[in-house]
Amino acid sequence: MTDPYGKIDQAKLAKLAEVSVQVGLNLQPGQDLVLTAPTTALPLVRQVVAAAYKAGANIVTPILSDDAITLARYESADDASFDCAPNWLYNGMAEAYGNNAARMAISAENPALLSGQDPAKVARAGKANSLAYKPALDHIVNFNINWNITAFPGLAWAKLVFPDLPDDEAVFQLSEAIFAASRINEPDPVAAWAAHNANLKSRTDYLNDQRFHALHYTGPGTDLTIGLADGHEWAGGASDAKNGITCNPNIPTEEVFTTPHAMRVDGYVRATKPLAHQGAVIEDIEVKFVDGRIIEASASKGEAAFIKLLDSDDGARRIGEVALVPHGSPISQSGVLFYNTLFDENAASHIALGQCYTDCFVGGADLSKDQIKAQGGNSSIIHVDWMIGSAEINIDGLDSNGKRTPLFRAGEWAV
Amino acid sequence: MTDPYGKIDQAKLAKLAEVSVQVGLNLQPGQDLVLTAPTTALPLVRQVVAAAYKAGANIVTPILSDDAITLARYESADDASFDCAPNWLYNGMAEAYGNNAARMAISAENPALLSGQDPAKVARAGKANSLAYKPALDHIVNFNINWNITAFPGLAWAKLVFPDLPDDEAVFQLSEAIFAASRINEPDPVAAWAAHNANLKSRTDYLNDQRFHALHYTGPGTDLTIGLADGHEWAGGASDAKNGITCNPNIPTEEVFTTPHAMRVDGYVRATKPLAHQGAVIEDIEVKFVDGRIIEASASKGEAAFIKLLDSDDGARRIGEVALVPHGSPISQSGVLFYNTLFDENAASHIALGQCYTDCFVGGADLSKDQIKAQGGNSSIIHVDWMIGSAEINIDGLDSNGKRTPLFRAGEWAV
Repeated sequence: MTDPYGKIDQAKLAKLAEVSVQVGLNLQPGQDLVLTAPTTALPLVRQVVAAAYKAGANIVTPILSDDAITLARYESADDASFDCAPNWLYNGMAEAYGNNAARMAISAENPALLSGQDPAKVARAGKANSLAYKPALDHIVNFNINWNITAFPGLAWAKLVFPDLPDDEAVFQLSEAIFAASRINEPDPVAAWAAHNANLKSRTDYLNDQRFHALHYTGPGTDLTIGLADGHEWAGGASDAKNGITCNPNIPTEEVFTTPHAMRVDGYVRATKPLAHQGAVIEDIEVKFVDGRIIEASASKGEAAFIKLLDSDDGARRIGEVALVPHGSPISQSGVLFYNTLFDENAASHIALGQCYTDCFVGGADLSKDQIKAQGGNSSIIHVDWMIGSAEINIDGLDSNGKRTPLFRAGEWAV
Repeated sequence: MTDPYGKIDQAKLAKLAEVSVQVGLNLQPGQDLVLTAPTTALPLVRQVVAAAYKAGANIVTPILSDDAITLARYESADDASFDCAPNWLYNGMAEAYGNNAARMAISAENPALLSGQDPAKVARAGKANSLAYKPALDHIVNFNINWNITAFPGLAWAKLVFPDLPDDEAVFQLSEAIFAASRINEPDPVAAWAAHNANLKSRTDYLNDQRFHALHYTGPGTDLTIGLADGHEWAGGASDAKNGITCNPNIPTEEVFTTPHAMRVDGYVRATKPLAHQGAVIEDIEVKFVDGRIIEASASKGEAAFIKLLDSDDGARRIGEVALVPHGSPISQSGVLFYNTLFDENAASHIALGQCYTDCFVGGADLSKDQIKAQGGNSSIIHVDWMIGSAEINIDGLDSNGKRTPLFRAGEWAV
C-alpha cells in the first residue's frame, strides 16, 4: 500500500500553514480559531493548529467533515433529512465569531463527490445548510472577523485534476500547484505576500478613483453590461476586518472585486470554465440577464443542478460580486483547471450569484441592510462564483454618461 | 507500510455499529444524533453514521477530535489557553440535546496521551472543559435524552493494552476483546442484549426491595462504609430517558449502580486497578474518607494528577456513584486491563468521584437540585469512576439498624 500523501514536501506544507495563519488570518495572540476541513486534510490541519498555537491562539477548534460520511447520508437517510441542517453547530459558530474567533476553512474535498446523487436532494440539503449557516456566514461576509480559506491536495480532488497520474503523483502535482499559487516557493513568502498586496492595492486605488457606473464585457458568447452599485468600493488582497485585524481572506488570491448593482445587469454571458458546486461539475453555462435578473439559463452538463441553484431564493438569480483577474495571472498560466473556486476564480475574471459583500461599499460598515439594498447590493442565502474571463474577453469601464475606458483587452489589463 | 487496522473483522465492526445505534441509543426515526469520536475511530464512525441514517436519523453530526491536535496545544499554546475551552461548541451541543438530539461517544483515544505533559496544565484544561461542558453534560447525566458510549480499538490504546504485539495484531486483539464484551459474537446480539438487560434488572429489583442504608466493603487495604442516599434507586443495563426512549448508555455494561450519600462515607479504600484519566495513568490509589470527604489520598504513580482531580471543586472529594460488578463478569474474566473506564468499570465494583446521577433516586425526574442535595446527592463538575472491586472483596448490605446481609463474597454475588 503506497501512501498517496507520501510525496508531499512536508517543509512546504508547514510553510503553507504558517502563511495561512500569519498572512491569511493574521491571527492575534489570545484569539480563538474555528477551523473547518475535511478529514483528508488532516496533515495540513495538524500543521495549522500547531502554527496557530505558536502564534498565540487561545483555543483552536477543528470541525472535520468526511466525504464518506457525507455520502452515507445520501445513500441511507430518509427524505425528510434533506431539508434539515445541524443548526446547533452553526449557531455555535455564530456565537464564536460574535466573540471574535477567527475562522479558517481548508478546501480539500472531492469537487465531484455528489455528482452521482439526486440534484434535487443536493439542492435541498444545500439550501437547508445555507439557511442554518447564515448567522455565522454573516460574520464572515461582513468581515466582522478575520478569516481565511486555504487548500490541501485531497486525493479525490487531485485525481480529478490529474486523472492520468498515479495517486501519489497526482497528489504531489496538485500540492506543488497549490504551493506555487500560494507563494510558498518564494524565499520569504510573507514578504512576497506584502508585495503582492501592494500591487493589488494600486489596482483598487485606480478603480476607486474612476468610480465607473458600469462594466461592459464582450467576447465569444458574451455581451454583458454590469452596472456597479452606488457607492461601490473595489477591494483585493488584504482586507481590514471590523475587529481591527487586516487579513488575506483567500490564499491564493489574484482578484480585485466589488459589488455590482443587482438591478442593472443586462445581456448574455458564457462561462469560460466549469463550475464545481456542491459536488456537481456544471459545464458550458450560458445565461441571459434582464434588469439584473437571469431569465434564461442553460448548461451542457449539470443543468438541473444549476437551475436548482438559481432557484435557491429571490436573490440567487442576481449577482453580488464582480471580480477582475488578468489572464496572465500565475494560476491561469499554470494551465491547471482546479475544479475549485478558490483557485479557478483567481485564474479568470468572474461574477458571483447571490449575496454581496457589504464591505464593498464606501462606509459599508455603517450601512443598514435597507441602505445596501437601495444602493444595489444583492441579498441571498447563496454566494457562488463562476468564471467569465478568458484571453478573448474585452472589458470597458463606462461612466454615467456612457464614456468608455478600455480596462481589459484580450484578457489583460489595458490600464 | 502495514495498515494497523487491516485485521479488524469488518462484519463485526458493522454489527457493533448496528448494536450501538439500535440497542445503545435505540435511535428513533427523525432524531438528530451528535457523535463525538477521535479521528482514529473513523472506520467505526462511518459505520455508525450509516447505521444511524438507516435507522431514520434526521441529521448526524460527528465532532472529531485528534490526538496530534490535542498534543499540539500542550506543546505550543500560551499558558492562558489552559484555562479556556470551546464554549461555543459545548453551548451548541447543549442546544442540540435540548432539542432532543441523541448523543453517542466513541472511545478510542490513547489513554496515556497526556502522561508526558504538565499535570497542572492537564488539570486546568480539564477543569475549564468540564465547566464549559456542564450545560451539555447535564442533559446526559439527567437522562433528558438517550445516549450511548461505545469503543473502537485505536492503535495507541491497543499498544498500551498489548505492548508486546505488532501494531496490527494488537489492534486485532483489542477489537476482538471489544466485540466479545459488547456481545457482538452472539448469533443475535440484539436478543442477547435483551436477555442481559433482564438479568441486570432482576439484580436492581432485589436491591430496590432491600433499600439498604449503607454498604460495607472489606478487603486488602479496604474497610469502607458507603451510606446510600435517602430515596436512592438502583439502575443497570437499559435506562428510560426522560424523552421516553429506553437506551443502553454503555456498551458494554455489567454494572448495577446507585447514588451514595455524599456525607456518609467513612473508612479507607485501595483501588484495585489503575485509573486512566485525561491522559495520565494513576496507579495504586489509596484514600481515607471522613464524613463523606476524602481527607487523605496517595498514589504510587500519577499522584499529582490525582490530587489535582480531587481539587477540581468542592464536590470532587466526595462520591456520586456506587456500582457493583461481580468478579466473574466476562470482561473481568478476559483478564485484559483496558486502561479505559468503559471496560474496566465493568470488570470490577467501583465508585465515582463527583457528580451523582439524579436519575438514581425514586422519582428523580421531579426532584429539585436542593432536594437531591438534601437526600445526599453529590454535585461536581467531574464524574470519574475508579475500581475498588476484586476477587478479595466482601460487601455487606446494612439496614438502618445495622443488620447485615452478605451481598458479595470473594468478589461474587452472595445473593
